[in-house]
Amino acid sequence: MSRLWNFSAGPAAIPTAVLEQAQRELLEWNGSGASVMELSHRGKRFIALAAQAEADLRELMSIPADYAVLFLQGGATQHFAQIPMNLAAEGARADYMVAGHWGEKAASEAAPYVRVNIAASSKSDQYLHLPSPESWTLDPGAAYVHYTPNETIHGVEYHDIPDVGEVPLVADMSSNILSGPVDVSRFGLIYAGAQKNIGPSGLVVMIIRRDLLQRATRPMARIFRYAEHAAADSMLNTPNTWGWYLAGLTFQWLKDQGGLVAMAERNRAKADLLYNAIDGSGGFYRNPIAVADRSRMNVPFTLHDSALDAAFLQASEAAGLLALKGHKALGGMRASLYNAVPLEAVQALVGFMADFAQRHG
Amino acid sequence: MSRLWNFSAGPAAIPTAVLEQAQRELLEWNGSGASVMELSHRGKRFIALAAQAEADLRELMSIPADYAVLFLQGGATQHFAQIPMNLAAEGARADYMVAGHWGEKAASEAAPYVRVNIAASSKSDQYLHLPSPESWTLDPGAAYVHYTPNETIHGVEYHDIPDVGEVPLVADMSSNILSGPVDVSRFGLIYAGAQKNIGPSGLVVMIIRRDLLQRATRPMARIFRYAEHAAADSMLNTPNTWGWYLAGLTFQWLKDQGGLVAMAERNRAKADLLYNAIDGSGGFYRNPIAVADRSRMNVPFTLHDSALDAAFLQASEAAGLLALKGHKALGGMRASLYNAVPLEAVQALVGFMADFAQRHG
Repeated sequence: MSRLWNFSAGPAAIPTAVLEQAQRELLEWNGSGASVMELSHRGKRFIALAAQAEADLRELMSIPADYAVLFLQGGATQHFAQIPMNLAAEGARADYMVAGHWGEKAASEAAPYVRVNIAASSKSDQYLHLPSPESWTLDPGAAYVHYTPNETIHGVEYHDIPDVGEVPLVADMSSNILSGPVDVSRFGLIYAGAQKNIGPSGLVVMIIRRDLLQRATRPMARIFRYAEHAAADSMLNTPNTWGWYLAGLTFQWLKDQGGLVAMAERNRAKADLLYNAIDGSGGFYRNPIAVADRSRMNVPFTLHDSALDAAFLQASEAAGLLALKGHKALGGMRASLYNAVPLEAVQALVGFMADFAQRHG
Repeated sequence: MSRLWNFSAGPAAIPTAVLEQAQRELLEWNGSGASVMELSHRGKRFIALAAQAEADLRELMSIPADYAVLFLQGGATQHFAQIPMNLAAEGARADYMVAGHWGEKAASEAAPYVRVNIAASSKSDQYLHLPSPESWTLDPGAAYVHYTPNETIHGVEYHDIPDVGEVPLVADMSSNILSGPVDVSRFGLIYAGAQKNIGPSGLVVMIIRRDLLQRATRPMARIFRYAEHAAADSMLNTPNTWGWYLAGLTFQWLKDQGGLVAMAERNRAKADLLYNAIDGSGGFYRNPIAVADRSRMNVPFTLHDSALDAAFLQASEAAGLLALKGHKALGGMRASLYNAVPLEAVQALVGFMADFAQRHG
């Protein structure tokens, strides 16, 4: 057995070069006499690692100095709740723009802490496209506007940053962070679960404009306050040190690959290859999303006859193509094309798809 | 360079055999074609791994069926806050027994969510012993009693479970879980950050009596409710899959070692060896804790002349003994002797200590 092409939606593929380095130094890291997992987060060696990871992320994303970078736990889902706790006073309102499952979930977990206004939604159209700007009902008095730039289940993605005026824009970038350059200064807060484009699960990376750190006025434990985490360099308590380490290796790998401009080009090429295969299959395969709103990261597609689904999954796995089963909410297939999925994987996939269509067409 | 003897207080030593297995299968786990970190937590392979880890922990600790076992995130510190959110109604009272730094911290993080009664404290005696039972002021109407069975900084440990009557007993076992057998049925809730006796940081293991899951009545996001995590088999959102995997390997290693009775014997032998070396040093080394209350896991000690501290630390590291520097709150030295620290490590330490004392006595 060896490593196969992995299209998992998350936890997802990690660059093989990153895993190989982690494997080499798993028992003894960097001359320390111990695994990186066995070192105090407060020791000099780990603090240097942590600072280097932050510096590399700042360089990759051109993060302005007035933004703090935090390495947290709890998954994006915990921060669906913690963000209103930190950014909204009790009784305040917040706008949520909903373009799929994760936007819905963010709004619902926020509801105990803020008055949620669904300022945009394409749910009535089954999330087949983004909410059109004419339909937005933004509240200029909102504490913030939350949106999900890429929806992993529905396969829609914002290719431009929505203009929400002066209200701080909060983005759950779990599934498309680092997939291309982004103007961080347009955001109040960016957060991402690591398990798609950064590293293993159990780590959340957050980029927050420092003035927003002062907004948490309601009573809560220190551990929930982003300002406390920022003041403690994300070591208010023991962080996920392994996750932080692998994130750092991934950031170095991204720099080696040429940074986010290069990644954007590759991700565009990968997505184009797959969408062209689907659209050019004469209806054998189908992706229903409005073309302009299609995700580069997650490509859901169906077969013209769902009775072929089981055969497709069995044959694709036999061909070394992993985790193509679609989310249960939509059925069908889904291929996730995060940074660590190389073009060769997508070439293998479209080759398999063409062959399968020919055999079953 | 190779692996040295690691006395870190946490993140701490992990059994070498566990790390070797993790290293072997880092790139490709269990015939899956991917790293265990790259697999969906909702796939059959990972679900089987997760269930096996839980079953092994249940076997090791003889956990009764009316207790749920959860694999969570956030560190013990987050659960200092989340426990009162879940176990106490708004306005309710809870008792805290405080025998060191971590008991204090648990009480202070709980304060926004429950009326904290310090029902016992040895702070006025600098935590040199446990609070004596005659001094306890337990409240029969408390929602729960919280205590810290082992204090990593001060080096005190409860060797018996406190009798708190019918009120549910909540224990932060971060630093002594799995160090010996424990009667789980005496507890309402046991929780532990993984980074001392279980695995890497970023994982919390919780054992909770199922009837207590129904106590969370205040408004909060689903992600904070233990009942939701229990209902979802700790997959309410993406768990720390790597941490869960390494915890499972550690549980198997513990079974291979003969289980918790065998570990208790070894831990007793290790601690006795070190305490005897300290007490028999003619005052060169000193541990100030009441003998009956001394921790088997964390042994703080001072040199008779603190001007020798720097030389001791430099020479011990040169001798392959890592992370002996004491916590900054107490100064001096500290040796943590968790499960993964073998007797040979303590033998090397006491040999070094005798030699150092002879050279500097």
